[in-house]
Amino acid sequence: MALEREFFIGIDFGGTYVKYALFSGDDRAILFKDKAPSKADQPQDVIFAGLYDIIDELLEKAQQQGGTVVAIGMGSPGAIDFDQGKLIGSTPNIPSFTNADIRGKLSSRYDLPVWVDNDANLMALAESREGAAKGATNVIALTLGTGIGGGIIIDSEVYRGSFFAGAEIGHMSINLEGPPCNCGGKGCIERYASATAMVHNYRTKLRGHALKVPEEINTILIFDEAENGQQEAIDTIDETCRYLGAALANLVNIFNPEYIVLGGGVSEAGQPFMDQISKEMHRVAMPASAKDVKIVHAQLGNDAGIIGAMRLAFDHYEKMQK
Amino acid sequence: MALEREFFIGIDFGGTYVKYALFSGDDRAILFKDKAPSKADQPQDVIFAGLYDIIDELLEKAQQQGGTVVAIGMGSPGAIDFDQGKLIGSTPNIPSFTNADIRGKLSSRYDLPVWVDNDANLMALAESREGAAKGATNVIALTLGTGIGGGIIIDSEVYRGSFFAGAEIGHMSINLEGPPCNCGGKGCIERYASATAMVHNYRTKLRGHALKVPEEINTILIFDEAENGQQEAIDTIDETCRYLGAALANLVNIFNPEYIVLGGGVSEAGQPFMDQISKEMHRVAMPASAKDVKIVHAQLGNDAGIIGAMRLAFDHYEKMQK
Repeated sequence: MALEREFFIGIDFGGTYVKYALFSGDDRAILFKDKAPSKADQPQDVIFAGLYDIIDELLEKAQQQGGTVVAIGMGSPGAIDFDQGKLIGSTPNIPSFTNADIRGKLSSRYDLPVWVDNDANLMALAESREGAAKGATNVIALTLGTGIGGGIIIDSEVYRGSFFAGAEIGHMSINLEGPPCNCGGKGCIERYASATAMVHNYRTKLRGHALKVPEEINTILIFDEAENGQQEAIDTIDETCRYLGAALANLVNIFNPEYIVLGGGVSEAGQPFMDQISKEMHRVAMPASAKDVKIVHAQLGNDAGIIGAMRLAFDHYEKMQK
Repeated sequence: MALEREFFIGIDFGGTYVKYALFSGDDRAILFKDKAPSKADQPQDVIFAGLYDIIDELLEKAQQQGGTVVAIGMGSPGAIDFDQGKLIGSTPNIPSFTNADIRGKLSSRYDLPVWVDNDANLMALAESREGAAKGATNVIALTLGTGIGGGIIIDSEVYRGSFFAGAEIGHMSINLEGPPCNCGGKGCIERYASATAMVHNYRTKLRGHALKVPEEINTILIFDEAENGQQEAIDTIDETCRYLGAALANLVNIFNPEYIVLGGGVSEAGQPFMDQISKEMHRVAMPASAKDVKIVHAQLGNDAGIIGAMRLAFDHYEKMQK
């Protein structure tokens, strides 16, 4: 009897969209991918109904391609009890998802093994397995977006903390006298180097110089204006690099990793921005700790979430077979 | 043939003393311990000659007790290439020890397996195996002394970084605008919460208020004066707790460990000091990350170094037997 091809499902559940894909187990290539609204403001059963539709669709695709799905991996915002595959408490933008028993619901409905992890952890896993830090043992990954998400790979595995509430790198304070953060701390790196913080700083500088403030500011605009030589934009970027460099120096002194991977909108600003961050990191990090560390762009972009979710399922399914 | 009892040697090599002990492999109890000057200002061959004398003495003790030494563990200041058992570069107070090939010299002379690690790593290992954090999986240990040393236990093993230059927790900056540190950074926690920093801050406060400055200030004096109600001493301690609490909050947000173990002179100040640090940590850490973390006194005191060195050898010797 010929063995059926083994497929894996990777789901990246976010505040706006659910991205999802079917992967071949042979080469972990994407066979099919799509996205759908995540209905984050709806009751939990509506959200799960949407997830069931997605999985039904992927199971059908698998059948069409002559294979069978053997495991499901899923990423979600929030703290995830990895052992149980459940959300711990609530996550800000998906109010009804509090304590959602993701593994419980999906595995009982589909009779398949299901692994669930925090989305930033899975971005780090994806980049360390198949992206910018491929093959590395110790990796720190940061996603610079509305906030700053963090993922830590230690000894080639996701580090989650003893109670699944670690890797909150965005809330590392680099200035105890700094502005308050909504996490309860002060001077968190998220307050200096997220896209939100950059836009805020830029707007403040324009106002301070009585300059016209554009209606819509995003980081692309700031980088463009800096390229045009506008001092306020250049200063905003300089500050971001200085603070982010200091935060990375802390991480380098602590973890001495092979790679720090930067993803998310802000990090797509190009190599000069990366070089400037790296320079600032080296300026304050301990030379021995920093010397062999590479700061690199994330490579997997928007697919990092689905690839990480697939890799989570793939790795654990492999272990289960042994 | 009756098997001979297996003994282990633990050596804690420091800038002033070498502490050393013979351990029983059965119950890992100390059978004999002593210390000798480390001769840190002497040439490397004199330092090694001193170590040979120590090991010869311990081998003789072992024989007297009807056992045989099966492995040697040793801790040293500085960055250690754990795979090779060598110092990486130099360590400040022991100039001739640069690149010292500790394992090479000891194992070839004694034909015994030798493991070498950084002393702060071994303090963390000791406390996580047999001390304040016994049985815990993820532990951060800080030694608050002249400087601040750090050790990280992840998944029950010492975390060293990809290039053996991690766990430099004393050089985590918590204030990018803070005072320069001799590591090249600014506002490192060592500048706020080491014994050196406390003494400096206290002296500055006394001078600022035109008070008499005692000739010799140490942390014991500061804690005593605080107990007597002296405002400058109280303020010094409050500041130390605020900064140290913020540093621990960063570690808690990143590692979400079971324990943070505080050792060294400053941490021996008693439970109220620990409680104050813990309160400051909780004030700024993320509630989910901090809620189950315990901040505790180190338990092994001056023996942490030899116990950690022994445990390093013991654990690796056990693995070797499998």
